[in-house]
Formats: sequence, structure tokens, C-alpha cells
Amino acid sequence: MRATYIYGAGDIRVETVADPELLLPTDAIVRVTRACICGSDLHPYHSKPASEHGTTIGHEFIGVVEEIGSDVATLGVGDFVIAPFAWSDGTCAFCREGLQTSCEQGGFWNMPGKQVGGGQAEAVRVPLADGTLVKVPAPVDEALYPSLLALTDVYGTGWHAALRAGVNASKTIAVIGDGAVGLMAVLSAKQMGAERIILMGRHETRTNLGLEFGATDVVAERGDEGIQMVRELTDGYGVHAVLEAVGMLPAYEQALGIVRPGGVISRVGVPQYEEGPVGSTLFFPNITLTGGPAPVRTYIEQLLPGVLDGTVNPGKVFDQTIDLDHTPEGYRAMDQRTALKVMVTP
Amino acid sequence: MRATYIYGAGDIRVETVADPELLLPTDAIVRVTRACICGSDLHPYHSKPASEHGTTIGHEFIGVVEEIGSDVATLGVGDFVIAPFAWSDGTCAFCREGLQTSCEQGGFWNMPGKQVGGGQAEAVRVPLADGTLVKVPAPVDEALYPSLLALTDVYGTGWHAALRAGVNASKTIAVIGDGAVGLMAVLSAKQMGAERIILMGRHETRTNLGLEFGATDVVAERGDEGIQMVRELTDGYGVHAVLEAVGMLPAYEQALGIVRPGGVISRVGVPQYEEGPVGSTLFFPNITLTGGPAPVRTYIEQLLPGVLDGTVNPGKVFDQTIDLDHTPEGYRAMDQRTALKVMVTP
Repeated sequence: MRATYIYGAGDIRVETVADPELLLPTDAIVRVTRACICGSDLHPYHSKPASEHGTTIGHEFIGVVEEIGSDVATLGVGDFVIAPFAWSDGTCAFCREGLQTSCEQGGFWNMPGKQVGGGQAEAVRVPLADGTLVKVPAPVDEALYPSLLALTDVYGTGWHAALRAGVNASKTIAVIGDGAVGLMAVLSAKQMGAERIILMGRHETRTNLGLEFGATDVVAERGDEGIQMVRELTDGYGVHAVLEAVGMLPAYEQALGIVRPGGVISRVGVPQYEEGPVGSTLFFPNITLTGGPAPVRTYIEQLLPGVLDGTVNPGKVFDQTIDLDHTPEGYRAMDQRTALKVMVTP
Repeated sequence: MRATYIYGAGDIRVETVADPELLLPTDAIVRVTRACICGSDLHPYHSKPASEHGTTIGHEFIGVVEEIGSDVATLGVGDFVIAPFAWSDGTCAFCREGLQTSCEQGGFWNMPGKQVGGGQAEAVRVPLADGTLVKVPAPVDEALYPSLLALTDVYGTGWHAALRAGVNASKTIAVIGDGAVGLMAVLSAKQMGAERIILMGRHETRTNLGLEFGATDVVAERGDEGIQMVRELTDGYGVHAVLEAVGMLPAYEQALGIVRPGGVISRVGVPQYEEGPVGSTLFFPNITLTGGPAPVRTYIEQLLPGVLDGTVNPGKVFDQTIDLDHTPEGYRAMDQRTALKVMVTP
């Protein structure tokens, strides 16, 4: 099969390798129907040290079960499935609490030493298949593929940001970042009833989509100027909840600048920093800092009905489709922001 | 009157000064019945640069209204009142939300430029008296003074820690710190139904009082050893909620070490640090960081009935009583930990 590898910053290659095989009785092999490129794939694309050995990449895919291990009980060959960006057993203490990203046996695609490939490939070995995969009732309309694919990560991630922030109709929300996750945070906040959603982003085609998803205001300015704008829009108070979908330190600092006393900063952009302001700045105004990798496994089940019945169309974040051989161009397009989110057809 | 001043680290003096006077029609003058010394008073006691000019100190007092301004509507001369550690108008957006520590017109005792003295004195000018003070129904039993005094700060602060952490019967709790606030966090967690409360502290008389308030386990170890102990007590998982009542960076780091994925760190110890771990450490396990200065004005009304009917006895944290002239000795006793919390009789 063909699969995508990263050899270092800017060095993405599609190679022909052996097909994945069942290794454990709890495994399934999934033939990929659609995959995509994530904003977080751009982090290694920017910074990974060059290596002689490539690493598989990609963590978002939907597909069809091709083979199952002897212990797989809830899935059958031919099932159409959504794969969350984390695999999980579905039975441990954390999975039972709905926090599958902390599964005691679980992990992430492309994890070193786990013999688990990436989603940007023709097929993937899925560990703990019963716990990991969510079956979509047949027949699956091809027109829904983009939205089903959005459920593997960005939609559930935006949902997590809004849910952890306690979004409701009475709260004013700001979303930092007009990437796919930021736009999904807008959509999620809207679904939870928020009447005022300020989207902070400066790419007009993206913020326009944000307006379509439910944003009521767009602030293109960043830093102090952006903070000033949001404060003006909120009578000087700031917003009740900031959904931070970027992950860089200035985005966190921006969140601190626009959040109202007693408010919440909910982060779903993977922090590219470790140390930062965490003392008085958060403490004195009673700010709550929350968020993390979304347990999308939980959210897929909750959000799938709305996708299937057409209530929501998160798949609109895909504005470019390429075939697997052109994955390197897909990375380039997302890096140069000529594409918002790239779908890959194997 | 006599009032307590701090002139620098270790330099506490009781001086005779003019009685406070009404300055605004919303003021009241309160004759102090009991005051006390707070763990947070020890921060300037340790580090305040020496100065020729003293600053008033103390932010916890109960007393009797002696005089009211012409706009004070809900209080009368002779009322017995509890003063929260922050004064607030009771009408702004934040007060209406129950976050009086962020009051738009409010402030804290001893604030520079506000002509507001401290609680360790014979009398205090109370700004925004209607919003600030909580009246206790007469007659007030002197035996209740310690518990009423605890309501000015430490009890509400412990309550805030537990409330913000979402304590309930199904959660395992750890409290870091065996000072008065830590012990009040234990009491509060117990009141909220927690069945497992691990108190981290190493002063046996204090942790014994913690056991009386509802702690089920005591861990005297700190740092890595303490983390290891708590993990052992929780089957390796860590606790659902950490109530951090110290405020030093190592206490925050200890909280990070013992909190379970998906859990909460609720801080009420005033952070003596600004930068710290705030990226991946919090993010990947989906830890929520919350807390801040407690809006005790809200909590006094909720907690007063339990104090009046004897359900709880938070006043047990006072283990030494001195008269106002001996305030410097009171600071020394708390600093040297020969006293847990010192009550001051003017």
C-alpha cells in the first residue's frame, strides 16, 4: 500500500510499503476511505529534525473494516467506521468516564514503538478496535464523507473547547484562531446556544465561514490591539469564555487579555510552550483554565446524529481535496494557508 | 484608637491613631469585636521592604456598627456584622454574579490610596457598607465569635476551593496545606459529601484537627515522596481534585503530580509566583486549573446558618487569643508555627 511519511521539517513523502496486518486479537484493519491533514500535523512539518528514517503521519480517517481480530466483538468486515485521533480500550477507568485520550491502554496514531501507522495511508492497523472505532449505520452517503471525517478530530475538538468552557446562551464567547478547530469551536458554541460569538482571525475566507457557522463578530487584530477590540465589544468586561484553538503562547496571552473575571479559558490548540503566566494573572480574577486533547470518541456518538440528519455540516472546513500521492502538496497548501483543510482520497 | 501597622518584614507595631471617620455617605464605622491574623499576612511579614511609613494590616474582623453614612440603608447602629476580606458594592455586574472580589467599585482592606484601614485595630471605616457587611441576627453568643470570625476569610476560602473543584461524594480529594485555609478546605469538602479526603501537611496538631474536620488520610511527605504516597493511596490514579491552600510554586507542582487525568486543581493560596508550568503538563491530561480569591461575601450568607446552629465549628482553627497590644507576638507565633491561627481582642 501507499502511506505518508515525514522525514523531517518540510519533507513529506508518499511511499509504497507492506500492508498492515493484524497483530493482536483486538485489532482491526481499516481500509481508508478519506483522510485529511490537521493543523497539528504542521507542527512536525515545521520543526521535526531531519532523519534517515521516516515516520508515518496523519491521525484523521474514516474507512471500511477489512479484517478483524478474533476478539473484536462489535464490528464486522464491511462496517463503515470513524476513527478518533486517539485509540482506546473503552473499558478502563478513564474511558468509562469519557476521557478516552487518557486511556490506560490506549495511545495515538504514529506512536513510536506501537506499530500503529498514520491515517494518511491506504490502510491502518487499528488497535483496540471495539473501544476505538465508531460504526456509521449503512448506507453511508458519500456526500457526508467530509462531515464524518471532521468527526475524527476537529469537530469533536471544537466541541470539547465549548463544552469545557460551559458555553450557554447567557455567555459571551471569543474563539481565538480561524483554523478548522477554531471554526468548529464557533459551530459548537452556536449549537450550545451562545448568542454572542467573537471570532478572532485574520483570514477573510475563513472568518466568513466562521460567520456562517454562527460567529457574530470578527476581530482581525491580534495582541494588544485585538484585546482592546474585544474589550470594546464587551463594554470593557471581556468575554465569559475564550476557546483557544491555536496553541502558541501569544494566543494564550491574548486569551488572558480578553477573558472576564470569573471566566474560562478553554484550550484545545496543543500548547507549543510549557512555562507561562500561571500565577496572579489567572488567580486574582478567578479565571479557570481548562481543556486538553478532546475525547472525540465520546463526542462522535453524541454528534453523529446531527451530521447524519444534516443539522450541521462541519465538513465545510474542507476546501481542497487531493489524492494520496499529492499529500506533500497538501501540506504545502495548508502551511501557506492557500487551503484551510485538505482532504485526502487514497 | 489603637491599630496595627507594618513597617517592613518582621516589623509590626501597634500605634495610637485618630479614630476612623465617615468619608462617604455609603460608609459605616465598625467597632471591632474580634480580629485575627491570616496566613497571607505572613507574606508581607516575610518580605515587605522596610519603610519610614507604616501601613495598616489585617483583613479579618467582626464587630458592631457604630456609625453609618446617610446612604446606608440595610444596616443600623448596633448591628453585629461580619466583614469579608474584600469590600464590594453589591450591585455591579460581578457582585450580581457572586464574584464580589472583582467588584467594579470594591477593593481590599489596607489598599493604598483608599483611606481604608485594616482589621487589626479597634475600629475600621467600611466603604460600601450595604454591599460589604453581613448582619448577624441578635443576640450573638460570644461562644460563636471564633466561627463568625472564620467566616470573614478562611472558611469561605476553603469553601471556594472545594466548590470550584466540584467536590462531591464520588470524588477523591487532596488538600495541600495544613494551615487554617487547608483545614477549612477539608471541612468544606466533607460538607459537600467527599468520602475520601487526603490532607497533605506535616504539623501533627494541625493534621489532627484536619482529621476531626473530615480528612480520612494524612500524608506528611512533600515533593516527589508526597506525590508517590498519594498515588499509592489512589491505586496509582491520583485524586479527582486538589485543593491547593499554600500558594508557593512547589505546592502547585505537587498538585500537578497528584491530580488524576481529567481532574481539577483549585487554588486558594495566593500564588507567590507568576511563571510556571502551564503548557503540556496541564493540557495533555485535561487538567482544569481554577480558584482565586474567594467571594466570601456570597458564602457568608450560605454558611452562616450552619455556624449559628452549631452544625459546623470552623472557629476551632483559632488556637491562641491575644489582645491588640500583643499583635506583634501574634505574628511571631504564627510565623514560628507555635500558633495555627491567632485571634485578636481589641
